[in-house]
Order: sequence, then C-alpha cells, then structure tokens
Amino acid sequence: MNLPQTYRIAILGATGAVGTEILKILEHRNFPIADLKLLASPRSAGQTMSFAGEALTVEAVSADAFENVDIVLASAGGSISKTWVESITRSGALLVDNSSAFRMDPQVPLVVPEVNPDAASLHRGTIANPNCTTILMAMAVWPLHQVQPVRRIVVSTYQSASGAGARAMEELKTQARSILDGEEPKPEILPYPLAFNLFPHNSPLDESGYCEEEMKMVNETRKIFGAGDLKVTATCVRVPVLRAHSEAINLEFDSPFAVEAAREILEASPGVKLVENWQTNYFPMPIDATGRDEVLVGRIRQDLSNPLALDLWLCGDQIRKGAALNAVQIAELLVSRNLVKPTALEV
Amino acid sequence: MNLPQTYRIAILGATGAVGTEILKILEHRNFPIADLKLLASPRSAGQTMSFAGEALTVEAVSADAFENVDIVLASAGGSISKTWVESITRSGALLVDNSSAFRMDPQVPLVVPEVNPDAASLHRGTIANPNCTTILMAMAVWPLHQVQPVRRIVVSTYQSASGAGARAMEELKTQARSILDGEEPKPEILPYPLAFNLFPHNSPLDESGYCEEEMKMVNETRKIFGAGDLKVTATCVRVPVLRAHSEAINLEFDSPFAVEAAREILEASPGVKLVENWQTNYFPMPIDATGRDEVLVGRIRQDLSNPLALDLWLCGDQIRKGAALNAVQIAELLVSRNLVKPTALEV
Repeated sequence: MNLPQTYRIAILGATGAVGTEILKILEHRNFPIADLKLLASPRSAGQTMSFAGEALTVEAVSADAFENVDIVLASAGGSISKTWVESITRSGALLVDNSSAFRMDPQVPLVVPEVNPDAASLHRGTIANPNCTTILMAMAVWPLHQVQPVRRIVVSTYQSASGAGARAMEELKTQARSILDGEEPKPEILPYPLAFNLFPHNSPLDESGYCEEEMKMVNETRKIFGAGDLKVTATCVRVPVLRAHSEAINLEFDSPFAVEAAREILEASPGVKLVENWQTNYFPMPIDATGRDEVLVGRIRQDLSNPLALDLWLCGDQIRKGAALNAVQIAELLVSRNLVKPTALEV
Repeated sequence: MNLPQTYRIAILGATGAVGTEILKILEHRNFPIADLKLLASPRSAGQTMSFAGEALTVEAVSADAFENVDIVLASAGGSISKTWVESITRSGALLVDNSSAFRMDPQVPLVVPEVNPDAASLHRGTIANPNCTTILMAMAVWPLHQVQPVRRIVVSTYQSASGAGARAMEELKTQARSILDGEEPKPEILPYPLAFNLFPHNSPLDESGYCEEEMKMVNETRKIFGAGDLKVTATCVRVPVLRAHSEAINLEFDSPFAVEAAREILEASPGVKLVENWQTNYFPMPIDATGRDEVLVGRIRQDLSNPLALDLWLCGDQIRKGAALNAVQIAELLVSRNLVKPTALEV
C-alpha cells in the first residue's frame, strides 16, 4: 500500500507577520504535515496559535528544537537564521529561509517555484526565499524573458508597511489616527512618519548610493533568472499602504515585444493575474492584491520612448507571494520532487 | 519721479486649493497689486477671503468681471478657462492659465520661469502654467540638460491627493478615518479608495495605453525644454499623501554625467534644494516639501544598469511650485519684463 508521506514542520518566527501567514497557508493548502512546531523568541514563547482547529503553543527556539523536524520554514530575520542554521542542519532538517542571510550564497538555491524550480534540487540543506519585491517582479518579468530576453529593467517600487513587519503596520495606523486628530505622529519602528507621507526605502546605503533593498532587486533577480548580465536599476520607496507592494516596471528587450503578445503570455502564466479594464481605468491596486496568491499585473504599454521597451504595473501581497506563500511553495516543491527525507504516515 | 507700477489682478477659481494658495503667495511675495478681484462659480460667490488683513468678497465670474483687470490668474479647470478666455482677452487682460486647456497650443507659451522665461515674451494674451508633475520634473532636469542633453527620461510618480483638488484631500482623510474605525471607505471624488491604497492616475487613457497625466509629462516637457525629440516615458500613480508629489526619475544623457557634477549643478540651481543625508538615510519626503517653494531633490546616483544614466528622486509641493507659485512667478516675470500693460500707482 502506498502511504501518503507527511512531514515534520517547524516555523521559526511563528508569531511574526510572515510566520502567522505561513501557518494559515499550510492549513489552507493542506500541506502534508505529520507534526507542526511553532518556534519564536523566548519573549513570544507560551502564546498559543490556532492551526486546523487545534491550539498550538509557541516554543522558545533552542538548539535541540530542530530535532525530529524535516523542514524548517524560517522568517525571523537574517541574524536569527544565521544563529540557528548549524543546529538545523546538524539535526538533519532542511531550511527554507525567508531572510536575506543566505540568498546570495552560491551554494544556496534562491527559488521562485514558477521561475526556477529546478534550482531547488541543488540544495545542500538550505534554500532561500527571495526578497518580496524581487519575487513579485520575477513573476511578471520571467514569462516575458522566456520568450524574448530582457536586456534592462528600470523599476520603481511602492512598498507597504508590512515589509517592515507587523509592528510597522500598526505604527502606520497609529500615526494616521494621530494626524487625523491633529497630533504629531511618532515614528518608532520606521525612521520617519509614514502616514500621509512616503520615503525612499531606509535599508542601509552602499557607496554607489543604492540601498540594500534596491541591490536585492538587482542581484537576486540575476540569480533567480540565471542571467548574471541582466541590467537592473531600482528605486525602492516605502508608501503608506498596509500590506501589498506595487511596482512600475520598464522592460527593455533585445527586440520589440508586441503588447498583445505580452498580455497573452502573462494571462497564461501561473501565479499571475492580468487586471486591466481600460474602459473604467481599473488596474492592479494594493487593496485588491491583499490576501491574494496571484501577482496582479496590468497597464501593459508600448514604451513611447523606446521601441524595444514595455511599461507595466503590478501589485502583489507582500506577505503572501512576497514571502509566506513562496516559502510554502518551495516546501511543496521539495516534497513533490522527493527532495526532503520523508516520514511515513503513522497509521 | 519713477512711480512703482502696480497691477489689477483677478484670481479665477479663488476658492479652490490652488486659488487659495495663489492668494497667500501674492501676499507673501508682495506682488505689486493695485486691485484684487476674487472670482469663482456662483456657488462660491459671497464668501469672504482674507488678503493682507482685508476681507475680500468672492464675486461670481461673468463676462464683464474682467474689465479693468491687467492679469487673470486662472485655476478653475480647463472648461472654465475655455469659457472665459475670450472675455478676458477682449477686456485687455492677460491670462495666466493653470489648466491644461491651452498648454499645447503653439501660440501659447508654456512657462516655468527658471527654465524658459524668454518664451513668455511671445505671448498673445495667454500664458499657460504647466502640469504640476511636469513643473517639478523640469526644475530638476533642466539644469542638468543645460550642461549635457538628456536623451531619455523614465519617470514614475507618487502623486498626492491635492492634485485632484481640496475635496480629494478631504476624502483621503475621511476614508482613512473610516478604515481605522473598521468601516468601508466610500470613494466619491476619486474613483477608488485612496486611504492605505494607491492606483494608477485615473485621467483618461489614450489608445497607446498612456493616461492624460502621463502624456502631459511627455509633451509639456518637450515644449518647455524646446526639445521636440526628447524621449519620455511616465507612469503616474496616485498615492495616499495629502499635498506634495514625489518622482523617481531615470535620466539617460548623451554621454556619462558625473554624480558629483550633477549634485553641484542642482545645489546651485534656483528653486531647487538638494536634500541628501547619506548617513541618516534622509532624502526628500512629501511632508518636508509641503508648504515649501523649492523642489527637494536627492538620492542622485549613477545608474548601475546604464553608464549614461543617473537616477534621482524629488518631492515638491504640488500646490505651490506645482501650480500657484509657478503661476505667480509667471506674473512676476511678465511684470519685470514689462510684458503687461501697467497701471501707474495712484498716489
């Protein structure tokens, strides 16, 4: 008899914005779970979270917390991932890491399942989940790049508060209320007031003047596409939106790309939804992308300034496809390709 | 004796967001006024507005309202300007028009005083004030274009509610409060909810897929720069900010442009303020541009994807330099170059 295989899963950073969403998505997609462990900082230990009707208690992460675990889905930040990667690997678990810690490590596959699933098979115990803005852009650009290589990308982002975590989302709401009540907003999580304001992404700047977030879009896109010479420039901006990111993308190809062809390709691409109503001027919006799995793409136009270029616009849920969903999809990919050591279902 | 000359001014659309600001700026800049007439729709007639300590009563616009007026500063929308332009011209007044009605008319100069002041002398009774996003971009790009011609511009905008008028600003605040209170926001002025959301600019789309706002940036920039072959592509987006617009601009030149040189040029440009603190990641923000005359420019970077290109970021008060201030500056330019029929100061 062919028993279905199930897996022992741990979520590291279970109480965060992404961890919470991973839990929901595992349940919603019926991920084959034999055992589920919720790990977080000692501060969050003892909380209970609900999964499939059961209340699970959050445990404090420790070196032996990864024993008897097959897959760790980590979303607690780069330093936490770096702290625990050895324990995870030593315990024989596979790490799907949502932080930037290992993304550019040549031994770590960086995977968007719709784009480069085969890269997953090269893993040596860790697979990295790309940066949210990079994932969303890759979803829209890859299907076109397959048909005709992209030469250069100029992208401007409109990134929601959720990218800075659940507390930044709360801060945005608190600030908005303060301003409406005629008070001064107090930034604590974010460096500057975000309500009714916006600012260039505040990740560290390098000597070229690019911030880390922008360099992720440059370098991670190249790695995911396997296109080391792809030219990318990005301007990343934090906007007062709660949880979906938007991007204005200018794509230059090797030769002209018909708008109609691009539209048909994107319409047929898994994980992408074409949202264009030219009569009502209705295109992707963050509130419509929120809570959805698909990246919404629209306003595909021939660039009037360059016969080789197209302009397009997208919105995607930063927490779902930009983080939690992609991580779960990586786990599903590993499972379906038999790249995890499975545990037979105990009957 | 050389009497200072003063002028009889009318503000058409005096009660709107831009009209109100024109009134403030005329007072603040000590514009040489002999007489000031506030004109608006019959709905707004009878209101009083304060100017230099005096209460002025708003009059309903009519054909003979422009008699004994030297300069009309109009900001009541294109159809209103079209309705009254003949009466204005017939009465011998000069029209500085803030609407899009006459901007692309070859007989109407389109003027940003820091960029193309000489164009003003060619007027035949009407001078057009450019679109707000175009003015802000022109302020940052023109000084560089003077040193080395710009070949192509890729711009993404982050446009505040004020661009859609005072009622849109109110709607943004009302919607934000509704959402914070757990209610559904009701869009009335804007087509979609703007609070904690954003959407591509909702001006009419043409068959190329560009919206009117984007085509203004393309065509008006060419006209102001006197560069009919300048290549521009724009993506215009409305964001939940109250009154300053932001723009992410990628500029491709004929040959490489050193970042340091660009910085020095912009630092020395009138009407531009360089705002860059690379240590604290502090760059132009809408809340800092609000109420200011200067266009704040920063994050000037060598584009990593193109040796001929620079990236830069700006914020500017959409109502001031983007509209009211530029209109008053045009009037000042006309006055200083003796291009209006003046009235001798009555002593």
